[in-house]
Amino acid sequence: MASGDRDYILLDHGSGGRATHRLIREIFYSAFEASGEGFLDSAILGTHSGPLAFTTDSFVVDPIFFPGGDLGSLAVHGTVNDLAMVGARPLYLACGFILEEGLPLADLKRIVLSMARAAEEIGVKIVCGDTKVVPKGKGDRIFITTTGMGEILADPYPHPRRIEPGDEILVSGPIGEHGLAVLSARESLPLKGLRSDSAPVWPLVEALLKALGPAVHALRDPTRGGLATTVNELAQEAKVEIELLESEIPVRAEVRGGCEILGLDPLYLACEGRFVAMVARGKGEEALQVLKELPGGHEARLIGQVRNQTDRPLVILKTAIGGERILPVLTGEPLPRIC
Amino acid sequence: MASGDRDYILLDHGSGGRATHRLIREIFYSAFEASGEGFLDSAILGTHSGPLAFTTDSFVVDPIFFPGGDLGSLAVHGTVNDLAMVGARPLYLACGFILEEGLPLADLKRIVLSMARAAEEIGVKIVCGDTKVVPKGKGDRIFITTTGMGEILADPYPHPRRIEPGDEILVSGPIGEHGLAVLSARESLPLKGLRSDSAPVWPLVEALLKALGPAVHALRDPTRGGLATTVNELAQEAKVEIELLESEIPVRAEVRGGCEILGLDPLYLACEGRFVAMVARGKGEEALQVLKELPGGHEARLIGQVRNQTDRPLVILKTAIGGERILPVLTGEPLPRIC
Repeated sequence: MASGDRDYILLDHGSGGRATHRLIREIFYSAFEASGEGFLDSAILGTHSGPLAFTTDSFVVDPIFFPGGDLGSLAVHGTVNDLAMVGARPLYLACGFILEEGLPLADLKRIVLSMARAAEEIGVKIVCGDTKVVPKGKGDRIFITTTGMGEILADPYPHPRRIEPGDEILVSGPIGEHGLAVLSARESLPLKGLRSDSAPVWPLVEALLKALGPAVHALRDPTRGGLATTVNELAQEAKVEIELLESEIPVRAEVRGGCEILGLDPLYLACEGRFVAMVARGKGEEALQVLKELPGGHEARLIGQVRNQTDRPLVILKTAIGGERILPVLTGEPLPRIC
Repeated sequence: MASGDRDYILLDHGSGGRATHRLIREIFYSAFEASGEGFLDSAILGTHSGPLAFTTDSFVVDPIFFPGGDLGSLAVHGTVNDLAMVGARPLYLACGFILEEGLPLADLKRIVLSMARAAEEIGVKIVCGDTKVVPKGKGDRIFITTTGMGEILADPYPHPRRIEPGDEILVSGPIGEHGLAVLSARESLPLKGLRSDSAPVWPLVEALLKALGPAVHALRDPTRGGLATTVNELAQEAKVEIELLESEIPVRAEVRGGCEILGLDPLYLACEGRFVAMVARGKGEEALQVLKELPGGHEARLIGQVRNQTDRPLVILKTAIGGERILPVLTGEPLPRIC
């Protein structure tokens, strides 16, 4: 192999032979040091006494580097946050890489190191993985699928079927930053001050579960489709009517301004470091204080309440000027490849 | 949405909104019926007393339909076979789908149903999943990443570090059929009688573990890079010299003939339903009888032996005409997208 060739992913890197082994040794083993031995094979996890949570997500974000994060950190945060949403402490990650021929090895290294940092920050171990290579034009640089396993610490664990009329609804921070930051980077829009909110939410969730216990009824992270779609999903799964207060939903000025210019609604933009919590009636204020005292939680807000059980679930937005409108799930113009 | 549009994957199917929900309801829930509720979210797995195995693989095979299988069945077999290689009964699968805009929904349905059938056949549950859509030209129809969890029934579990001088080496059936069948389908070659060997190997492995117990030292499935590369990996990990008997390695006449025409070596072609077993000295014949009595195992063969410990691991092929040559790992011309 000529030495210049080694700076890019080649088809040979996916053949399972010498080039694959070298790629794994040089890039993955050194980044995921603690777990090097098992990277190509099954990882052996030892025993766990409690119930386990298991979740998977593929990440195809475009561009792969954006303000506030990159594909690697996003692939870790997205999956560990899904575990947190059922009250599970993230323990292990598996990662599958689909690489396009011609990907600069420097980009791959940067993304793998970013994954390793994100995993270390939250204390989750990347224990096994796989790499495949597709010919140029049959992929788009790099796609990552991360699968997470965690131990469920909440009993009972948060679930939409536990939502009750009167539940108070919180969001852990300002919405829409991830979606707008990625769109803005992709289209090279001249929007200032935007950064993805991509971050692990487990520390906030853990504190909430410790303080409120079973009064935490349901959790959900407003990723694709944004806050509006997520709250609609919860309403439908719980068969309830939900009221949100527009004036209480935190949206940064940069996001509000960017959305006005682009004709987007921040309620439909993805977040990757926020969550919605439904807590028992009367517990909202306590939950809010717990979140506000923690890093990443000081902009949490109480944003609404669960009204009544219904066979026709819906979400009502009480607007800032005192009106009411139905807030539907995302339809129409898609915002592709946000995560 | 016009009714004709509904026959293909659209960007909107990946937006997280109404179209995503409908796709999941109509295609995934109906196929993965038992586990419908959790498909979008974390699956809750309950408790398991023994140690667990965890493995992931991305599948990018081209073409997605080939004689003897398709991307869906391959994505199930490939991952459950990795679990079997550490003596783990496959329990749960997570699956991440990366769909290219324009993929016919009929193809997606066929693949998803094939996954469901393959999972049911082996008794593994598909408990959670994710779908992403990339624009036309940024993917290639469909990529699937499956992640498996299994409970390890072998104690100690098979591992290359348990390989010892004198170990006898078996292969569970004829080699190279998967690789050649996929290549032949991709290039529309006029080769007759080729079918992928893609199949779950757990039933054979379970029987071997029950009969031989800890005398099963190591298992590995010869996928990418074929038997030659796999045995080299085992030699390197165990730091041993290994001798294979060319005349004993089972290769079907169709595969031998196809390889001669194409200038390929069957020893380097991927299998997706075979495994190599290293068993204690004197246990090879017993292992062979166990395999030969089971469906899918009647063509198993004893193909070699572990010679001595060494700091310069290598694999020696004793050729049919009595010579010896070193069998290297796969290098040179890659055979891309075999799995």
